[in-house]
Amino acid sequence: MDISKQVEILKKNVVDLITEEDLKSKLEKTKAEGRPLRVKLGADPSAPDLHLGHLVVLRKLRQFQEFGHRIVFIIGDFTACIGDPTGRNKTRPPLTEEEVRKNAETYQEQVFKVLDPELVDIKFNSEWNAPLSARDVILNLASRYTVAKLLERDDFNMRYKSGIPIYVHELLYPLFQAYDSVAIRADVELGGTDQVFNLLVGRDLQQSHGQEPQVVMTLPLLVGLDGEKKMSKSLGNYVAFNDPPKDMFGKLMSIPDDLMPSYFNLLTDYSENEIKRILSGHPRDAKLKLAWTITSFFYGEEEASYEQEEFLRVFSRRELPEYMDAYEIETLYNEGVRTITDLLVFIGAASSRSEAKRLVAGGGVQLNDTRVDDPMAPLQLTPGSVLRVGKRKFFKFV
Amino acid sequence: MDISKQVEILKKNVVDLITEEDLKSKLEKTKAEGRPLRVKLGADPSAPDLHLGHLVVLRKLRQFQEFGHRIVFIIGDFTACIGDPTGRNKTRPPLTEEEVRKNAETYQEQVFKVLDPELVDIKFNSEWNAPLSARDVILNLASRYTVAKLLERDDFNMRYKSGIPIYVHELLYPLFQAYDSVAIRADVELGGTDQVFNLLVGRDLQQSHGQEPQVVMTLPLLVGLDGEKKMSKSLGNYVAFNDPPKDMFGKLMSIPDDLMPSYFNLLTDYSENEIKRILSGHPRDAKLKLAWTITSFFYGEEEASYEQEEFLRVFSRRELPEYMDAYEIETLYNEGVRTITDLLVFIGAASSRSEAKRLVAGGGVQLNDTRVDDPMAPLQLTPGSVLRVGKRKFFKFV
Repeated sequence: MDISKQVEILKKNVVDLITEEDLKSKLEKTKAEGRPLRVKLGADPSAPDLHLGHLVVLRKLRQFQEFGHRIVFIIGDFTACIGDPTGRNKTRPPLTEEEVRKNAETYQEQVFKVLDPELVDIKFNSEWNAPLSARDVILNLASRYTVAKLLERDDFNMRYKSGIPIYVHELLYPLFQAYDSVAIRADVELGGTDQVFNLLVGRDLQQSHGQEPQVVMTLPLLVGLDGEKKMSKSLGNYVAFNDPPKDMFGKLMSIPDDLMPSYFNLLTDYSENEIKRILSGHPRDAKLKLAWTITSFFYGEEEASYEQEEFLRVFSRRELPEYMDAYEIETLYNEGVRTITDLLVFIGAASSRSEAKRLVAGGGVQLNDTRVDDPMAPLQLTPGSVLRVGKRKFFKFV
Repeated sequence: MDISKQVEILKKNVVDLITEEDLKSKLEKTKAEGRPLRVKLGADPSAPDLHLGHLVVLRKLRQFQEFGHRIVFIIGDFTACIGDPTGRNKTRPPLTEEEVRKNAETYQEQVFKVLDPELVDIKFNSEWNAPLSARDVILNLASRYTVAKLLERDDFNMRYKSGIPIYVHELLYPLFQAYDSVAIRADVELGGTDQVFNLLVGRDLQQSHGQEPQVVMTLPLLVGLDGEKKMSKSLGNYVAFNDPPKDMFGKLMSIPDDLMPSYFNLLTDYSENEIKRILSGHPRDAKLKLAWTITSFFYGEEEASYEQEEFLRVFSRRELPEYMDAYEIETLYNEGVRTITDLLVFIGAASSRSEAKRLVAGGGVQLNDTRVDDPMAPLQLTPGSVLRVGKRKFFKFV
């Protein structure tokens, strides 16, 4: 495809593009050399669960693949196996090689739901970082960057100013990450807008090693289901790649209406005009379209249509879903289930008795369309009874 | 010797002692273990010329030796061979292994003018630093210290605040130096007061490696011959260990009177009472005593007495020195020497024609007690003529 046309498509949704000229000249140069671009994607193997926030960047990578370019998928095992030696950062425990291998596989499996494996090279960055000596660390990394420039990174800056300790190895970590770009001679690196600092370090380090600097491309951070904060696992406002289709569909139906434009733009292939047309209709229909499109991307059209039908049955027509987990009343009795609290824990709708009581107190538990108020009242189940927990979970009894 | 008596003597002239309790307990503990203290002295092999400023610390080390303790003399070849890879610091070019070896020898030769070689262990710190991997640098050095604490060092602080770049490897260098203390399990480290920060990093790093922290001991910086700035090679206000006895004696006779108390205290063995007595006499006599004592320390009493006699002859009795370099007038003529400028360059009193002209212009050149004003006037030498350049250089002609 014509290079300026490629640039036009690749630019879509991009926040930072440093620089468009570099991207154009890289495309021209590699075309002349008869080779594809090397597009870097770094993965932190300590957090292997992908969610729709990651899909934004992965979809952009797939666009690169559609033009024949290759993704170099880098598993950051070198620093992951070291972790945070100070032990202060609990979210960064050192991983064993076995854990890294397992997480990398899980990661890869999920990534391949979006990317074409034929156009992906997988690399572990310990390949080039582990053999570095102390002298190499000084010559190839540390002497190439200033302390002041690293302390400009928002989180470092905030911590430095508030007197929260920054250990010297924390300054080295972005340099090791940047050194990955040098090692694989990356042409382009992608990330969320919160990664722009690290990606630019890669650009600088490549230049200091006499390489052409990589093109830096950032994509917007997807807002989570709550409509306020960026989608993240720790905030719980996410749809995971591995969510079952019912959860995926239901969660997407729960987003505030004003998130729809960004979700359509960042997570679907519809053109601007199509999106405009969809959004000009009824919001419920637009949201169904969104949930169906994303669910079908991960699970196919048949599954997506089934979940849509189920959703409509329960929420629009206020009917019961076609499929519900079923339990024998006799078995429950024999297992000692006597109260609603016992039941919620037994069927796995609550993870503990105290969570079960909170669910009841919150008014989210209905038995045969009647709200349950007393968590300890004796249970009255007859064949055909239906228990509803929250908006989407149904259980029937026989 | 009794430990509290040792401490009393070792404390003399010391500025920082961190801590006296630690010193006492180290002395007690090592005595019980039947081993001497390991007292660290770090040497920068890129600056191998020692001067009286270094003598202050070396004399203190010799005191340790007199109590049977051992000096671990560490040649900092690891970072010296790397130098400043940014090339900004011109005073820190990388040294070759050959240069390091040569400088270390020169250094050692000078150090042994003060220390007893029998109680010195010589180590090159590349022994333990060169084998470190990138992972080791993170685990053993970088993760043990915070950026903020390193930026407290005066020079870093000043540079950071004024926006003068500090490269990341510059933060690593004090950590490598401190790691030397870990590697040799130093009991004590000495330095000038300008080194207290680096010595304390050693103390911290040892603790973080589960070792008892070294005792840090700093000694005053000797003021240079100008009476104002600290003695240093770059300022030219120094007496080198390798200065010939005449220069050593003459330079010491040139110091301002008010430097005498500190020179006596820091550079000689006289007791406080003896110093008080000496200083209560005529300043010229006190200064002769000082110059004689230091010159005799390096060259023996006979040489010192000879230089004293020569000095008195020339400066007090305004006679000519007993010994002067002599040149044959005929030879000079045959070599093409025609003017005073030619002569100054030929006999080595000036390193170039322009320096010769500056010396004449400065009024520092006398021929037969008459000041020479014209650098290009034809030379009038007769047998017995005496040329004086500056205060202390005399040449005669035959």
